[in-house]
Amino acid sequence: MQTSERIERLLTAVLDGAAGPAAPPRLAEAMRYAVLGGGSRLRPTLCLTVAAACGDDRPAVTDAAAAAIELLHCASLVHDDLPCFDDAATRRGRPSVHRAFGEALAVLTGDALIVLSFEALRPVARDAPERLAPLLGIVARAVGMPAGIVAGQAWESEPSIALDEYQRAKTAALFAAATAAGATAAGNDPAPWYAFGERLGEAYQIADDIRDVAGESAEIGKPVGRDHALGRPNAVAEFGLERARWRLESLLASALDRIPSGVADGGLRALLAHQARSLLPRSLARPAA
Amino acid sequence: MQTSERIERLLTAVLDGAAGPAAPPRLAEAMRYAVLGGGSRLRPTLCLTVAAACGDDRPAVTDAAAAAIELLHCASLVHDDLPCFDDAATRRGRPSVHRAFGEALAVLTGDALIVLSFEALRPVARDAPERLAPLLGIVARAVGMPAGIVAGQAWESEPSIALDEYQRAKTAALFAAATAAGATAAGNDPAPWYAFGERLGEAYQIADDIRDVAGESAEIGKPVGRDHALGRPNAVAEFGLERARWRLESLLASALDRIPSGVADGGLRALLAHQARSLLPRSLARPAA
Repeated sequence: MQTSERIERLLTAVLDGAAGPAAPPRLAEAMRYAVLGGGSRLRPTLCLTVAAACGDDRPAVTDAAAAAIELLHCASLVHDDLPCFDDAATRRGRPSVHRAFGEALAVLTGDALIVLSFEALRPVARDAPERLAPLLGIVARAVGMPAGIVAGQAWESEPSIALDEYQRAKTAALFAAATAAGATAAGNDPAPWYAFGERLGEAYQIADDIRDVAGESAEIGKPVGRDHALGRPNAVAEFGLERARWRLESLLASALDRIPSGVADGGLRALLAHQARSLLPRSLARPAA
Repeated sequence: MQTSERIERLLTAVLDGAAGPAAPPRLAEAMRYAVLGGGSRLRPTLCLTVAAACGDDRPAVTDAAAAAIELLHCASLVHDDLPCFDDAATRRGRPSVHRAFGEALAVLTGDALIVLSFEALRPVARDAPERLAPLLGIVARAVGMPAGIVAGQAWESEPSIALDEYQRAKTAALFAAATAAGATAAGNDPAPWYAFGERLGEAYQIADDIRDVAGESAEIGKPVGRDHALGRPNAVAEFGLERARWRLESLLASALDRIPSGVADGGLRALLAHQARSLLPRSLARPAA
């Protein structure tokens, strides 16, 4: 089965488990809308690819970790789009959840997806019980306080933001978790994979900043120019386009250097090359080295 | 150590672990405000009391479960008070979190507390690893889809609400989880404790409905008459005050009947009697049988 098909199947299965006749139908529908409406699936792909590079000896455990990571990512998008944050009208090329279902259901959709992501980890106990607590910790740290996604978002409510800490928490934390979770799911030490994932995440955030400045709304599926409009930090605004691009490329190279020696490649380098090409707006992309 | 002191200590310790120099200070402050600002602590008290009745052979595991339950309860209050739900100005006798910290930080406070509640379970793996997955499942089901708190809240966004399903999800689910988690934390079968906790939770919801109609704002720490103002189901509106009171008392008696024979009492019946007295507004309370 292809990685992308594996991801859609496992997300659908987890969502099916949260639905059923007893569930309030509109919330169940909003959750599917938030998760199954496209999306790059970068983070679960990374999780599965690292697990493959580490042997993937318990595929059901890897699936659980990948699902948890993507559900948390989707939850963060739904809440980020709310009127009290970005007030985004579109996401993935169609109405954001709160525009499609109302604000109350959008808050609940995010909440339910956070809960579901942890519940998705429960099957780990069946196949590799000793891996459950480490995976729970990796996932929780990536999204909670003091330095996960929620913390990153909260820096926007502080009087001043340090760009590095903000981006590390808001984006890099979940990339690092995706790679660390992939290694842990396959019974490997996650430590070396954190640095790899963090660099990838920082690169992705810079690419996102570049797209926000130089991309086109139709291409990236959400409005452009939001950072400027919302007074948020943006690497292009801070360093200029050329320096931001240079930093993106050096981060990708540095990520490659962090791949622990001795693991099977498992498509990891190919994925990275593909990512490097797909991260930038088409008008700026050049083939990765 | 008294139960109430044990609960405040363990909540403070969990919150300390989510703070620190790397954390955005205002979110850290809002989380403490949301959790440590009083509160009845009914649910963690119930969890600890059931665990005691079951032998409480791993107190650190019980603490983790009780903390998770109360953090989820606090998270649900913060989100319920948001403008898109109840738009409540006060909670526990002082400004609600979104009034004190703004709406964005209130959304993030709820999110961070949900994540923290699952992270709080991680230490279970050290003392009783085989109890982690069952506790994770109990907690997730109580708060998520298809029938936890979030589902209960979502019924308010459906065209019609069935009072029983709504209240079971919105309130009874977390009471049932508190009792089931207490039993599980102590290595006992949670099944018989679900029925006990559900009945207590239904009784609590009816008492809450009675207070909403017949209580005074200063006494209960939040505005009264909200159900009517928001067009929400209320047992007094549906059945009248006397029938609602009768139902409350019969639920409490039925809960007592469900306590599995053969467990140590551990203060359970005394707690129940105390709860029965404290649930109602002072003007209506009469000593429990």
